[in-house]
Amino acid sequence: AGPREVWKKGGRLLSVLLAVNVLLLACTLISGGAFNKVAVYDTDVFALLTTMMLLTVLWILFYLLRTVRCPDAVPYRDTHAGPIWLRGGLVLFGICTLVMDVFKTGYYSSFFECQSAIKILHPLIQAVFVIVQTYFLWVSAKDCIHVHLDLTRCGLMFTLTTNLAIWMAAVVDESVHQAHSYSSAHGNSNTSHARLTPDPERAGSAVGGDPCPCDTTICQIFQQGYFYLYPFNIEYSLFASTMLYVMWKNVGRLLASPHGHGHIPSQVSLFRETFFAGPMLGLVLFVVGLAVFIIYEVQVSGEGGRTQQALVTYYSFNIICLGLMTLVSLSGSVIYRFDRRVMDHHKNPTRTLDVALLMGAALGQYAISYYSIVAVVVGTPRDLLGALNLAHALLMIAQHTFQNVFIIESLHRGPPGAEPQETLPKEPCQGLTFANLDALHSLPACPPTPRLVSPSPDGPQEAGAIILAPRGHWRRRCLKDISLFLLLCNVILWIMPAFGARPHFSNTVEVDFYGYSLWAAIVNICLPFGIFYRMHAVSSLLEVYVLS
Amino acid sequence: AGPREVWKKGGRLLSVLLAVNVLLLACTLISGGAFNKVAVYDTDVFALLTTMMLLTVLWILFYLLRTVRCPDAVPYRDTHAGPIWLRGGLVLFGICTLVMDVFKTGYYSSFFECQSAIKILHPLIQAVFVIVQTYFLWVSAKDCIHVHLDLTRCGLMFTLTTNLAIWMAAVVDESVHQAHSYSSAHGNSNTSHARLTPDPERAGSAVGGDPCPCDTTICQIFQQGYFYLYPFNIEYSLFASTMLYVMWKNVGRLLASPHGHGHIPSQVSLFRETFFAGPMLGLVLFVVGLAVFIIYEVQVSGEGGRTQQALVTYYSFNIICLGLMTLVSLSGSVIYRFDRRVMDHHKNPTRTLDVALLMGAALGQYAISYYSIVAVVVGTPRDLLGALNLAHALLMIAQHTFQNVFIIESLHRGPPGAEPQETLPKEPCQGLTFANLDALHSLPACPPTPRLVSPSPDGPQEAGAIILAPRGHWRRRCLKDISLFLLLCNVILWIMPAFGARPHFSNTVEVDFYGYSLWAAIVNICLPFGIFYRMHAVSSLLEVYVLS
Repeated sequence: AGPREVWKKGGRLLSVLLAVNVLLLACTLISGGAFNKVAVYDTDVFALLTTMMLLTVLWILFYLLRTVRCPDAVPYRDTHAGPIWLRGGLVLFGICTLVMDVFKTGYYSSFFECQSAIKILHPLIQAVFVIVQTYFLWVSAKDCIHVHLDLTRCGLMFTLTTNLAIWMAAVVDESVHQAHSYSSAHGNSNTSHARLTPDPERAGSAVGGDPCPCDTTICQIFQQGYFYLYPFNIEYSLFASTMLYVMWKNVGRLLASPHGHGHIPSQVSLFRETFFAGPMLGLVLFVVGLAVFIIYEVQVSGEGGRTQQALVTYYSFNIICLGLMTLVSLSGSVIYRFDRRVMDHHKNPTRTLDVALLMGAALGQYAISYYSIVAVVVGTPRDLLGALNLAHALLMIAQHTFQNVFIIESLHRGPPGAEPQETLPKEPCQGLTFANLDALHSLPACPPTPRLVSPSPDGPQEAGAIILAPRGHWRRRCLKDISLFLLLCNVILWIMPAFGARPHFSNTVEVDFYGYSLWAAIVNICLPFGIFYRMHAVSSLLEVYVLS
Repeated sequence: AGPREVWKKGGRLLSVLLAVNVLLLACTLISGGAFNKVAVYDTDVFALLTTMMLLTVLWILFYLLRTVRCPDAVPYRDTHAGPIWLRGGLVLFGICTLVMDVFKTGYYSSFFECQSAIKILHPLIQAVFVIVQTYFLWVSAKDCIHVHLDLTRCGLMFTLTTNLAIWMAAVVDESVHQAHSYSSAHGNSNTSHARLTPDPERAGSAVGGDPCPCDTTICQIFQQGYFYLYPFNIEYSLFASTMLYVMWKNVGRLLASPHGHGHIPSQVSLFRETFFAGPMLGLVLFVVGLAVFIIYEVQVSGEGGRTQQALVTYYSFNIICLGLMTLVSLSGSVIYRFDRRVMDHHKNPTRTLDVALLMGAALGQYAISYYSIVAVVVGTPRDLLGALNLAHALLMIAQHTFQNVFIIESLHRGPPGAEPQETLPKEPCQGLTFANLDALHSLPACPPTPRLVSPSPDGPQEAGAIILAPRGHWRRRCLKDISLFLLLCNVILWIMPAFGARPHFSNTVEVDFYGYSLWAAIVNICLPFGIFYRMHAVSSLLEVYVLS
């Protein structure tokens, strides 16, 4: 490890400023390109994204070369960063993104003559980018690098920015596609209120005089296919972003022990320690939900008369599912009231980010729900659908709230077996030991007296170091059941919006109340966060399952 | 101090969830009420705000009673929280808000017969709220309270939410007013693109058949007056919010010493330690700016032919001002490269918040600038005004960036005189002492071994404790000059947009490029943050001036 930097925040400031400026430029171009009447073409956006991805690939190659050549560059590895399920998910979504890139290349190659070259170049470069970045994150997600601090920070922030820009572009592209299918389903493709009207050439619709129609079967398949693969690309970018952020936080970080004290879960007992009730009920809901989703899609995309029935089915299933999830999360929080495991107060950038993302991403669904509630309560309709909509919105808020409380409390518990010794008093609130444990964290800082840092094995008696044999206590089993049940429910609630269920528009209450353009803006901005919340909750619940 | 809490984050979680939900409900109602065709009336918004203010006043009274009765409730006081200029600004803006409430009451009383009672009740309750809250913050801004932790956190968060809701309502009301004056100035008051069309009754326009016209002179004065006082109300809410946030962070905080180690500036040498060049140049720019602003307002609100000329004057002044500020901030950062004062690594919620607000609020102006740049670069016009607009946008980005870097670095410097002793090596990068000082902060946490916390005067050798006699070094003088110059420039750049200069709409480049509704949405969302940035930069620069 080289010489230490004097002021860490100053080093971070520079990279954040770089990221903010690049991101805002990308955001401006992408949002400008989404509007038909604005003279920003999607080729501009593609050119920007391609340039960013090329630069990122170059930086990653430089980083990998440097760390291979210089063995001192990474003296510590953060065991909390890049857990196996996150990296596994990244590879899975990366493969789906590669398939999407193949479809996209095929789609744009179908009318090669009247396309600019950048549209075919873009998916190819993206494929290279995905391969290089996935390898990079798989290998280096745990690194705490200690050379070229400022350059590494800027590089990581630029890579993060690239991923966020790709995410924004994908979300905007999907919203444009949704708006197009909405307006063509309602037969008013030339209305003025559809603000996100798609580029006719891009959507391949049969507008008279379009020189490049997408009318061959293979082209249609490519087009359909790549829109169904968008959710995976979106999740890939977000997964990569979270891992890059943790790497950025870990630049120049010093850890007490170079080998860490990670809690390694026992791999063998995957389902043995549950009561089976949670996974069973979750699986039933998952299968029923899948059926409901398919029925809903068929009925809504069919003739208009059966939309009402589809909505009733959809809302009823969601209300039951959300109600059960709320109750289960609540009972999980109640179990923790009887749990005597100590709270884990250690600094952990991964966990801090997880908590912030869970709270932040929930805002998207909160906002949609509150707008729905106001529309139903203030608006006139007093029918079955209005009541279902209201119940759905209220339960959505309750479910997000209680699930967040449960997950966040779970993540802050120490590992099993690290229960306080019998010498300690039972009530933590009365214990002087606990008071001072907390007080130490609240002190201004560690005393800045010169002391050499050595990986001292006899240093802090970390809770994680004490791994007793896991006992199959009923509380642990209950918690495992709860986390598996919530996990499966979150998966089905992710699938529905991610693959195109939009009851927000099939249901006319909000569209009539707010007008199409305002409601479309609200949903298109907030729903991506809601979808990301589900994905992120799944990965957090997997962690809860393993750790509890 | 009562028993310590086991898990501080859990206590905070509850209050954040409460705040998020209340804020989103308020946000929904306020944004819904801003649109004419949405059936949310402004009486609903007024009723919600009045209820929130009443609840807040009750909680504040309860808090004040409790802390007076129980002397153990506040064992520590955070000396960094609520500095005198922040509290002074709060009182000043509070008084202006009271004047605004008087005007508002007068305005609504002018047509008492056809108004609902809530519209007159609202400013009266707001006056009570402002008085009670200002007293509360003046007295308790530094408190680190240690009783009823969860209740206090929820109360503080609710008060914060109330202030943010009032801020949102004021911003929306002002945007509605701006949109109305824009559409009436352009003679198209019934166009469909003016989405924020004002309520005819509220704006008091002479629509045929309006039963309650505001046509008496006194009513007109009241109406004009309260719109000019809105900027102060907006700043009052934001000042109160920042102080409440710091109080919330300080709930349950333990400090090493109950009396703190604040750096008390020498009051006598207010201007003696500067070269006078900074304040003089700043004052010149301030006066010229005021003249430019008045000329601009007169020319724009007059006949349309002189708008072009007014814009050229406005942009030219801004370009000169921003260019000078950029250069001066840069030179300030260069001076710090030669400065040997140590960095202050102590935990300080006030400073962390200041930095986050400076960075976050700058995003508003960044976004506007990037949208302008794209419009000018991609759009066709290649005339003088386009060039001026482009230069203005680019300089705006540069100025915000370099000013933020300068302020953030200044806030992290230790107080003057705390320069490293001569025994330490000159180059910090080579010094082992610095390395370990930083290394200690990067360690996972303080060792959680049981230890009693005592206010130990011989504990950490804090940099702030060493206050030597301030020496009139040229670097200090330069820094004081720089901060005063930047302060005055920020004041004039605050006055212009806060009191209604909107070159964004007078200038037709962006309106033509993005369309009125999109551009109005961008400006109306981002500009309040830009205005808040100026105000906040002023208070931060005052701190830099005092501390350097």
